[in-house]
Amino acid sequence: MSEIRQDIITNNNVVIAAKRGKRPHDFKDNKQVTEDNGYCPFCYGSEDDTPPEIIAVSNDPNRKANKPGWRVRVVPNKFAALDNDIELTEDKRGLYNKKSGFGVAEVVIESNEHHSTLGTHSLDHIEDIIKVLRSRYQKIATDERLKYIQMFKNCGSDAGASLEHPHWQVMATPVVPSAIKEELRGTKEFYNTKGSCVYCQMIDYEIKQEERIISNQDDFVAFSPYASRFPFESWILPKEHQKDFSQINEEQIKSLAKILKMIVRKLEVGFNHPPFNIILHTAPTVRDKEVIYHWHLEILPRLSKTAGFELGTGSFINPTPPELATEVLKEIEI
Amino acid sequence: MSEIRQDIITNNNVVIAAKRGKRPHDFKDNKQVTEDNGYCPFCYGSEDDTPPEIIAVSNDPNRKANKPGWRVRVVPNKFAALDNDIELTEDKRGLYNKKSGFGVAEVVIESNEHHSTLGTHSLDHIEDIIKVLRSRYQKIATDERLKYIQMFKNCGSDAGASLEHPHWQVMATPVVPSAIKEELRGTKEFYNTKGSCVYCQMIDYEIKQEERIISNQDDFVAFSPYASRFPFESWILPKEHQKDFSQINEEQIKSLAKILKMIVRKLEVGFNHPPFNIILHTAPTVRDKEVIYHWHLEILPRLSKTAGFELGTGSFINPTPPELATEVLKEIEI
Repeated sequence: MSEIRQDIITNNNVVIAAKRGKRPHDFKDNKQVTEDNGYCPFCYGSEDDTPPEIIAVSNDPNRKANKPGWRVRVVPNKFAALDNDIELTEDKRGLYNKKSGFGVAEVVIESNEHHSTLGTHSLDHIEDIIKVLRSRYQKIATDERLKYIQMFKNCGSDAGASLEHPHWQVMATPVVPSAIKEELRGTKEFYNTKGSCVYCQMIDYEIKQEERIISNQDDFVAFSPYASRFPFESWILPKEHQKDFSQINEEQIKSLAKILKMIVRKLEVGFNHPPFNIILHTAPTVRDKEVIYHWHLEILPRLSKTAGFELGTGSFINPTPPELATEVLKEIEI
Repeated sequence: MSEIRQDIITNNNVVIAAKRGKRPHDFKDNKQVTEDNGYCPFCYGSEDDTPPEIIAVSNDPNRKANKPGWRVRVVPNKFAALDNDIELTEDKRGLYNKKSGFGVAEVVIESNEHHSTLGTHSLDHIEDIIKVLRSRYQKIATDERLKYIQMFKNCGSDAGASLEHPHWQVMATPVVPSAIKEELRGTKEFYNTKGSCVYCQMIDYEIKQEERIISNQDDFVAFSPYASRFPFESWILPKEHQKDFSQINEEQIKSLAKILKMIVRKLEVGFNHPPFNIILHTAPTVRDKEVIYHWHLEILPRLSKTAGFELGTGSFINPTPPELATEVLKEIEI
């Protein structure tokens, strides 16, 4: 059974996924499953190799669950680090604290085409993916034991993807993670001093400054953040102040699909399909009226390695100034 | 000129190393320089390819600076992200804050033998390396503009090393990094509640518990931390309460060399020279009597990739429970 252990010094939580109990030899075959060996558990015909599906989007009203014919398919993560079927318990023994590894770990298989990418899907298809993510978000948020829903996409093995077939992951934890707590502390402090949402202020400021704006269209804006941690990092924010990803509406989904596809396609074309992560940042699901937040997506290309300086200090060294990154991204023709 | 920019939300600092100004094509040749192309700037005969040396350890009292004959050699980092020759300035414009990229970036070339490793050096040689690190620490700490000295070792390209030749890096920053601040907050809180150093308590507790102790000898103890973030992570702590790495004495250096060599050699043998980082955690150089800290080394094997979950939440998923890691590490024969 997994455990969520709390670091006694930083209060950071660590999921100890004891179920896998990896020993040295487990790390040696940690390669991508690609077309080279011909098998992929996310392709048509492998539906029985995943746990039974949670939902799927299909053109065929007569399609049976766990059979081909789907366009987007959500399944429990077969190698889940968190488990929804166990009790949420706490354990303080001796010096340390831990919780049981209660939570959610799902996979959203974003297409039935193994070699498709987020940058090459049709806009309709990307809208479907966003709608599926929103519907999982809304459903999972009804469980009051879960405090935070982390949705993310790993693309490429250097970004932590173990499978090439395009997919997203949904994880939900019974604690608000330390990185989110730190953001909430920052947004609250800004609100207390300046009387407004810091993200709303950033949007206005960046649009006025222009030099870091990658795209400003319809309901969303994309820019290279001032203190970018990764080369060619970009953030996509809704212009409307929304705490929480579940608040996105149909019109806004269309707008998000467009800007998301554009940024990802620019990376694919400009960097020849680099490894990258997309991270959803959103308010905790705990209904706390005091919380100031503004959900957004962070797109993090993984072109450099995280090394000793980053691990020691928590600060990143970024060799590409965001103003240059913006210029380069704008120039890439797609 | 580099800049240290402050994230407006988390207060995290980011070094924007504008001097490198990396564009897409700069990332394509980011491979290790190894024996395959026959050239290494850290080998004998390449002394002129580094900036002029700061100090060197040699058996030959007549050796000239920047010539062969050294055993350990310290040089400024040729691709420094921080620069010691500029003014430390602050700039608040519009919404954001930044500082100039003032700081220190040095490389400690730990041996003249390209293919040697920390696990295969003689104990005497490792003592020399530790003494050199201590002497750089003590010297850099005299500059009151610098608040923190981050010493670390990247080994292997997946751990962020761009050169194979064994080396350490020394960086010093004009701010106390966010990760250190968080640790100081935690140690202080523990001290205020329990009246003692949390690391001293951990040492006692772990020695009593036994199950996570990898080695307990002379002046140091090595264990797998309870909330290990990385598979086979280990920490080496001095048993004597010392805030700061510069306090280590000659006798303790002998003891540290032994335990450090043992742990690294176990990784080299058990995992066939895996990528890893070694991170020094120490008190800030600012003379603050209130600071509670206990310096130590963290040895972080990089067997798994940091992916979307870690980047989003700041929490790690570790597939190897530390109790199992301890068992495995103890069983590896060296």
